[in-house]
Amino acid sequence: MALQVPPSSFDRASHTQPVAHPLDPITAQEIQKAARLFKNANPGKSLHFKRIALIEPPKAQLRPYLQAELRGEKPTPLPRRVGALYLFRGEQGTFAAEGNLSSEIVESVKKLDSRIHGQADIDEVIGMRDLCMQHPAVKKELERLQLPATARVQCDTWPYGRDSGTESRRLIQCYMYACNLDNDHAGSNVYDFPLDFSPVFDMHTKDLVTMYYLPLGAELESITPPREAHVPHEPREFHPDLLNTPIRSDLKPLHVSQPQGASFTVAGHLVSWQKWRFRLGFNWREGMVLHNVTYDGRELFHRLSLAEMFVPYGSPQSPYHRKSVFDVGDIGAGVCANDLKLGCDCLGLIKYFSFVTNNSNGDPVEKPNAVCMHEQDNGIGWKHTNSRTGEVSITRSRILVLQTIITVGNYDYIFSWHLDQAAGLHYNIQATGILSTAPIAHGVQVPWGTNVNEGVVAHFHQHIFCLRIDPCLDGDNNSFMEEDSVPLPMDATTNPFGVGYVTTKRTLTRSGTSSAAPNRVHKITNPATINRTSGQPVAYAIHSPPKQMLLAHPDSFHGRRAKYARHPFWVTRHRDGELHPAGEYTYQSLPSTDLPDNEDLAAWAARDDPVDGEDIVVWHSISLTHNPRTEDYPVMPCDTMTVSLKPSGFFESNPALDVPQSTQERNRSVLVVDGGSAGGECCAAEKPKL
Amino acid sequence: MALQVPPSSFDRASHTQPVAHPLDPITAQEIQKAARLFKNANPGKSLHFKRIALIEPPKAQLRPYLQAELRGEKPTPLPRRVGALYLFRGEQGTFAAEGNLSSEIVESVKKLDSRIHGQADIDEVIGMRDLCMQHPAVKKELERLQLPATARVQCDTWPYGRDSGTESRRLIQCYMYACNLDNDHAGSNVYDFPLDFSPVFDMHTKDLVTMYYLPLGAELESITPPREAHVPHEPREFHPDLLNTPIRSDLKPLHVSQPQGASFTVAGHLVSWQKWRFRLGFNWREGMVLHNVTYDGRELFHRLSLAEMFVPYGSPQSPYHRKSVFDVGDIGAGVCANDLKLGCDCLGLIKYFSFVTNNSNGDPVEKPNAVCMHEQDNGIGWKHTNSRTGEVSITRSRILVLQTIITVGNYDYIFSWHLDQAAGLHYNIQATGILSTAPIAHGVQVPWGTNVNEGVVAHFHQHIFCLRIDPCLDGDNNSFMEEDSVPLPMDATTNPFGVGYVTTKRTLTRSGTSSAAPNRVHKITNPATINRTSGQPVAYAIHSPPKQMLLAHPDSFHGRRAKYARHPFWVTRHRDGELHPAGEYTYQSLPSTDLPDNEDLAAWAARDDPVDGEDIVVWHSISLTHNPRTEDYPVMPCDTMTVSLKPSGFFESNPALDVPQSTQERNRSVLVVDGGSAGGECCAAEKPKL
Repeated sequence: MALQVPPSSFDRASHTQPVAHPLDPITAQEIQKAARLFKNANPGKSLHFKRIALIEPPKAQLRPYLQAELRGEKPTPLPRRVGALYLFRGEQGTFAAEGNLSSEIVESVKKLDSRIHGQADIDEVIGMRDLCMQHPAVKKELERLQLPATARVQCDTWPYGRDSGTESRRLIQCYMYACNLDNDHAGSNVYDFPLDFSPVFDMHTKDLVTMYYLPLGAELESITPPREAHVPHEPREFHPDLLNTPIRSDLKPLHVSQPQGASFTVAGHLVSWQKWRFRLGFNWREGMVLHNVTYDGRELFHRLSLAEMFVPYGSPQSPYHRKSVFDVGDIGAGVCANDLKLGCDCLGLIKYFSFVTNNSNGDPVEKPNAVCMHEQDNGIGWKHTNSRTGEVSITRSRILVLQTIITVGNYDYIFSWHLDQAAGLHYNIQATGILSTAPIAHGVQVPWGTNVNEGVVAHFHQHIFCLRIDPCLDGDNNSFMEEDSVPLPMDATTNPFGVGYVTTKRTLTRSGTSSAAPNRVHKITNPATINRTSGQPVAYAIHSPPKQMLLAHPDSFHGRRAKYARHPFWVTRHRDGELHPAGEYTYQSLPSTDLPDNEDLAAWAARDDPVDGEDIVVWHSISLTHNPRTEDYPVMPCDTMTVSLKPSGFFESNPALDVPQSTQERNRSVLVVDGGSAGGECCAAEKPKL
Repeated sequence: MALQVPPSSFDRASHTQPVAHPLDPITAQEIQKAARLFKNANPGKSLHFKRIALIEPPKAQLRPYLQAELRGEKPTPLPRRVGALYLFRGEQGTFAAEGNLSSEIVESVKKLDSRIHGQADIDEVIGMRDLCMQHPAVKKELERLQLPATARVQCDTWPYGRDSGTESRRLIQCYMYACNLDNDHAGSNVYDFPLDFSPVFDMHTKDLVTMYYLPLGAELESITPPREAHVPHEPREFHPDLLNTPIRSDLKPLHVSQPQGASFTVAGHLVSWQKWRFRLGFNWREGMVLHNVTYDGRELFHRLSLAEMFVPYGSPQSPYHRKSVFDVGDIGAGVCANDLKLGCDCLGLIKYFSFVTNNSNGDPVEKPNAVCMHEQDNGIGWKHTNSRTGEVSITRSRILVLQTIITVGNYDYIFSWHLDQAAGLHYNIQATGILSTAPIAHGVQVPWGTNVNEGVVAHFHQHIFCLRIDPCLDGDNNSFMEEDSVPLPMDATTNPFGVGYVTTKRTLTRSGTSSAAPNRVHKITNPATINRTSGQPVAYAIHSPPKQMLLAHPDSFHGRRAKYARHPFWVTRHRDGELHPAGEYTYQSLPSTDLPDNEDLAAWAARDDPVDGEDIVVWHSISLTHNPRTEDYPVMPCDTMTVSLKPSGFFESNPALDVPQSTQERNRSVLVVDGGSAGGECCAAEKPKL
């Protein structure tokens, strides 16, 4: 049985074809053109580009364009505009510039406040890692540790974070690891031997600023090298080549096939599937974006994206008290996107999308197969058995999965949108990869961490994601409502037997926050469109269980830099450019109250804008409090969280009634005969092996 | 391409083979033998059997038996004992008897308190429905409504519920519907035309007790017939034959195949799969049960079952103020189990298990294919990309799914256990089927319901399930712990930067309840077994998001009859026979405080037993507050809730490290070429259709 395509092939078409739509992701040619534009505007300078990214058209232009398209018209093209963030090599100062690629004009350049720093780009980070590894102070510490000659030492750079309002140097914290001491396998667990020192460098001057020694007990800080030489321990590996135990031999292959092909159609970045229609977008920062999402011709969401994520650690010890990262703003979910592999990351019939980002020279960097799309069976869609007649009606639920996977140092995250046939969208967040480890003295425990190997602790931490939901339910003017289920008072005239309950509805009238509660559902509504069946405004509900929000103190720098992480729901009135809830510039950011230039979600919400029947944006912060388990090490089984956007009185009845019935003729399942594991495939070409 | 087996075939072997194990479900022969035993003990009487069910061996006998088995020994067989509940036809009085099938001895007979009623068995219910349909008062109401001659009228019997402490007659409430008025299709939506009257009958005397007229507005009760003739409305149907819209034609088939067979092995009711080993049980009441669950040879759970579910409705109006049902105790999840069909209810390679229950004559009733088992791909198991070397390690997650589906009148529930390769168990509850509808005047809305068609309202309600978890983590002596993530106080000596957080642990020392909170994880631990890596007692965590518990007032009859539904977690010390949290007899039950004979979970918890390091049982109440959407009608897309039991410091490291890597060679995915929906199957026998 020959495979029809080599697994390494990838579809290059999607980022080399001409731009056909204002929401198409930036192309390699556009990145080159933009780089030339900004370089030409700065003769004699060597530009270090942090980002070159598309500026989506103003909503006032884009919405009429999209609505004209929906009406079947061919609207006038909109100009392609780009934003760039760059430095002049060897100089202080960061510049944010905007240019028009259609007219080839630099529209604006702004030198940023010196306390603002761009994200840690790959070229910069690699440079700092190399510098760290070569630094005499680091070499001296490594000598002290007397690691075996075979040990491969690795430097992981972390955003410096913040513990003072006055530090404005651009700094980077290096956490050091030795790959398992007696092998140099490319898949060896890098994080199994955290070293006990951590230098901080100035990224501009390249100077060593501080050499930290890491606390090996519960002390708040460690001033001197905690011990002389390294203390070895048994390694914990996950790569199959390095395991001491044999691989399971009793897992039989499972194949998914679609002999008639996929049910979706793709035209450029426009995807249609089962009454859904949307445009797939991608950028260096948010990674995968869904634009202009409609179902059965009705507008639902203008834009859906992962707008930020913050990972603060719970150790109060120095320097861990600063250990935290905005993975989206400090680094970029698009930048970190994996090159997905056929047959490894998904089963079945897979469509890949490829994109480009830029390097520091302004050259395009391919992000091949950064998003994959495929269908999955998702169990039963709906079923009813008429007990009197025996008649069974049953459908299966098919979902369309759009997936991107990012690797940020030790952690790997899987983000996927699942679109179902009943007009529900489900955002899945999965955390996997390797815990961020720290050294600990053998035999010691700390109350803010779990020991995962001898001498290795994984500190408690949180992952707080922010899903940006820009709705357009039957148009732009939407509202946000808390709907609570509350008991009626038990009294003779209203509820004599104490069983009655109703819902109370509170619509937010002004921008602000909303809390979660077990009896509460949050809904986005269009107050001007009444569902004829229910008599209530059409709505989508956001189903997301109550989660522990940011545990750091609101007055801490974590609390002040990631205010979005303090409340599960925020509602603002839309303004162009307000995309990033912890501010445009998150790296080592000052709270927006200290540096008003870098406005954040809390600042936008504080405008007290009217938000009832307005063009609103809903920001949903989703928190995973991760107190590591031993079972999360040396590599972590996926931990999954799901947020569902489900119609709730948007349609007059179940929109999936017309899904074909589930039948053996369609599905070709196979019976397992009694008493054993044998079975067969429905495909006649394969003989079942007994 | 021929199918290897007809889809209607079902495996009869599992309930005709000889009993091999004390936990094997009751067989047809055993039911016959038991019926003979109890009939012979009551000469001259005609017995109406409500149930004939296995009594599992006392734990003091069973646990040594199971542990001997685990050690590879062949323990002495334990006697098979049965319990029966029966009436003498035409007489008052219910008897609970126990007998030994091995010795053929009736061991005990007890006449129950006259206020205790057995469940509504199928034969009794059918009899009452027939009686209702023939009753002159019902015929008179139907004449008043002037339904078309083609209308098929249906009577749905509901447990009477309770609104007074003194009613002891055995009553039944009949809700009446007319199948869509102009067709008699077997799949027509029975619930689309709820009628406006509801008779109550005495099930013993067969007398009409009350004729209720249903409120058509928000009034608390309706005394007289609310209107003369029926008011027609457009039907809402779901059966494909009856839809006005065409079926979707763009959904391409998706097949799952396992050419080398399934990965599980089955020996009788003993299942082994991917380090898991358990015994599948089944009974009329709980339906599917998992016994003696081990992973990699270590004991985890002695017994797992759905112990009860309560569905109270939120309308305060009469007679809806009593509308509520204990679907497990009043009817039986096993009794209602669907006959699952190959290719309809699951995809892939499916193993079915068949069981038996009894009818009122004491004859066996086949429950063919009541549980199915198959493997599913569940996305990525774990993944890590080493960014420095590019080495990718990735596994897929395979799960073993055990599924049972029950139909209880209008509703259908899908219950499934998902076992994963990393030692996690996930209990999935899905609600589907048809909303319980009630009539409402056209154009009217009530605050405790959603209008789902003209003249049709679906009242708010809750489904509160109780999962009974009898753990044996490394042995019987376990504890239950609340683990809260709490910030450290922000002060100079402990947490100067306000970022630190720790966990606080509270172990329940006495039987009682525990509440849910976003910052809380509940854990079952074995305090005597310390994980060598973490230094902490081994534990399994129960992951279940905080849910709104019973909304009915604690002093209401709902609140007092279903006390389990008031708290998400309860812990008791194990006693044999304590299986049913709302009491052994739930039909029209009096609160256990009023009728101490019918002890419930609250009574067991009130014993103030020591539960720290004891043989404990954990009861988890899982609530779905269901305020219907228009999209839930005329048939409801599955609404899914999941409770996960995950190792949390039980193993020293990730127990799924030895899962084979995910490769294209194993998985045979297929690339979708750019721009279209075409694709192909990896199987050479099928040509891709472009």
